Amino acid sequence: MSEIITLMTDFGMTDRYVGAMKGVILSIAPRATLVDITHEIPQGDIRRAAEVLRGVYPYYPPHTVHLIVVDPGVGTARQAVALQTPCGRFVAPNNGVLSYILMENSPSPLPISPLGRGKAVNLTNPTYWRAEVSHVFHGRDIFSPVAAHLSNGVAITDLGDELDIAELVKFPISTPREHEDGSLTAHVVHIDHFGNITTDVPASLLAGHEWVIEVAGRRIRGIRRIFGDVGEGELVALVNSDGYLDISVRNGSAARELEVTRANELKLRRIIE
Amino acid sequence: MSEIITLMTDFGMTDRYVGAMKGVILSIAPRATLVDITHEIPQGDIRRAAEVLRGVYPYYPPHTVHLIVVDPGVGTARQAVALQTPCGRFVAPNNGVLSYILMENSPSPLPISPLGRGKAVNLTNPTYWRAEVSHVFHGRDIFSPVAAHLSNGVAITDLGDELDIAELVKFPISTPREHEDGSLTAHVVHIDHFGNITTDVPASLLAGHEWVIEVAGRRIRGIRRIFGDVGEGELVALVNSDGYLDISVRNGSAARELEVTRANELKLRRIIE
Amino acid sequence: MSEIITLMTDFGMTDRYVGAMKGVILSIAPRATLVDITHEIPQGDIRRAAEVLRGVYPYYPPHTVHLIVVDPGVGTARQAVALQTPCGRFVAPNNGVLSYILMENSPSPLPISPLGRGKAVNLTNPTYWRAEVSHVFHGRDIFSPVAAHLSNGVAITDLGDELDIAELVKFPISTPREHEDGSLTAHVVHIDHFGNITTDVPASLLAGHEWVIEVAGRRIRGIRRIFGDVGEGELVALVNSDGYLDISVRNGSAARELEVTRANELKLRRIIE
Repeated sequence: MSEIITLMTDFGMTDRYVGAMKGVILSIAPRATLVDITHEIPQGDIRRAAEVLRGVYPYYPPHTVHLIVVDPGVGTARQAVALQTPCGRFVAPNNGVLSYILMENSPSPLPISPLGRGKAVNLTNPTYWRAEVSHVFHGRDIFSPVAAHLSNGVAITDLGDELDIAELVKFPISTPREHEDGSLTAHVVHIDHFGNITTDVPASLLAGHEWVIEVAGRRIRGIRRIFGDVGEGELVALVNSDGYLDISVRNGSAARELEVTRANELKLRRIIE
Repeated sequence: MSEIITLMTDFGMTDRYVGAMKGVILSIAPRATLVDITHEIPQGDIRRAAEVLRGVYPYYPPHTVHLIVVDPGVGTARQAVALQTPCGRFVAPNNGVLSYILMENSPSPLPISPLGRGKAVNLTNPTYWRAEVSHVFHGRDIFSPVAAHLSNGVAITDLGDELDIAELVKFPISTPREHEDGSLTAHVVHIDHFGNITTDVPASLLAGHEWVIEVAGRRIRGIRRIFGDVGEGELVALVNSDGYLDISVRNGSAARELEVTRANELKLRRIIE
Repeated sequence: MSEIITLMTDFGMTDRYVGAMKGVILSIAPRATLVDITHEIPQGDIRRAAEVLRGVYPYYPPHTVHLIVVDPGVGTARQAVALQTPCGRFVAPNNGVLSYILMENSPSPLPISPLGRGKAVNLTNPTYWRAEVSHVFHGRDIFSPVAAHLSNGVAITDLGDELDIAELVKFPISTPREHEDGSLTAHVVHIDHFGNITTDVPASLLAGHEWVIEVAGRRIRGIRRIFGDVGEGELVALVNSDGYLDISVRNGSAARELEVTRANELKLRRIIE
């Protein structure tokens, strides 16, 4: 009864860290299928980890164990937790990386939040840890063995004391401000590998109107369907594969073209016909 | 009856894209063995994807499904295709990434082309896609589920309308020009991680003669057997592990030493004894 | 009877090399579980490969086959070897990458050396190689098939002529110099992805005293337990998860802050109360 275990960390792939975690997991759960989501989360970037997780977990079978070790507070009083939901099981520090999982009434097309149907525990039972625990590498000595035992069929309630889900740390999720004139002030949420700029505007907010988008001193008229609707190297606004507004450059980098970072705001105005 | 599925993309490993694809695949084909070939193909670089694929597929069992998502035309009229051959099965956009698979009389030591014994289809049957298809992420919503179903034993002809293999897009494969005096003008095909410069000269063209190679204003006399045949940091010409002429620097980077790119030509002259 | 095979190389993930090796392995050992330790070892950096290996192999089941292809001498007279120990099986060039495995009386908390209980062979039996061997890619044509056959249950003694373990190449392992006044001169062994500076000082040498550490013109007083014991961006000395002294910056890079490389020395002085 071993299942998929996904791994997400900020450890990079140049050191011993990820390799050691996988050895620990496979020693306990030899039949588990390990999947690397990414080990390139920027150091301690909890928000980025939460965003990548949001775009990944809905596509996995519900018994999958998602292991997230982006843990700038390792060794401090921050809790280590497990969360069981109808959409996946999660093992992580209690620092906000599960924020999107915990959203109610998510505007995204992804499965709605498990709140009310989930179960959370504080990982306090050392039976499921490695015998010796390094204060600086809970990824190897606590999170990995716990994820492996969970995958093997250990009940989540055996892993520690039950927690109210409301005790799980949630950072404020960015949403666009809606103004009286129907315009929106939106925010940059993520910049991907290609330089696509993901905003916090769900497609549902855009429906029924034509829009002009102002960003970094540039204007983009209309929301297109695909990159191919504009010429090579041109700016384009479209709905990305998670259901949010993206600003892109066809076969180029919008982030480089616009010199945009996560600090930037965008203005969206309705076109009055 | 699940098999190996290899993945090659230009998505990088910092975002949600590859993780989402793997979730889709493992939800459909939970026993598949997933192998990452690379996700570091430069954005939209079809030629590079084709070259990496050439060096990889001959080493896999023939039932392997090779999934290639380097797809700058996603959402446009470009076809999505599957190709079944005696040397592997391929799922990819119809944009040239399969060019080397389709070569007749390949000069390389790799298995010869499957032309005439292969079968191709246009992926037109939405039964094997995800229920909702994003216009900008066919990798997740079309290519991944199709690869998983193919791996599960679905017949290729169930995936869509059969295509004449001649309809598969093939870019012109670079070959050296042979001159009347026996000399060759060759081309840079690939520069690897180490800075080794791979040319389009197959070993068979070199046999029976001694050669002097001119590249970027430098002369290299003779084709050596191994890096160790020259001193540390010295230029060396040798036959690479795919059977083509490489220009290298022992424990260094020939591309950096010579400032060579894919635009450069090389001259090869026979040494008259 | 197929097991875990781990892979460590300096091939990077942008080319065909790792993908080709995995195809060879899975063609021979289709049930093997492949684990990438890293393919980002700097070109030919045997010392780094040995250090990463030290931090990984103790966490794997003892039947695991660890395949290490960091092989600047490929094609030369350097031997290709396999080593069987109670803590793992290793397939690698005989160039020092196994140095830490061969240490006697290792000061680390890791399992002690297998010396005296191991068995080594020179990989001289071509039965277990690919039929055609490229002089420049033994990773694909010798090391990979040998690792796969070993994983399948082939006896190590079938792979070639037995070697005295003393014939395996070992580089000198760095250790701190202990001075008459009780102070230590220590060395930088490794700088990780986060910029943590790992030294050659085992925790056992530090016990029972308070210390002041001098490095790159800076003084760090006391060995702390966790990053959280100092403020954001501050220097901290602590025992890392392998049992050695690290110099770190909380949520920052000590290597960048101190401009330290592997060439630097550190001074450790006891605090006299």
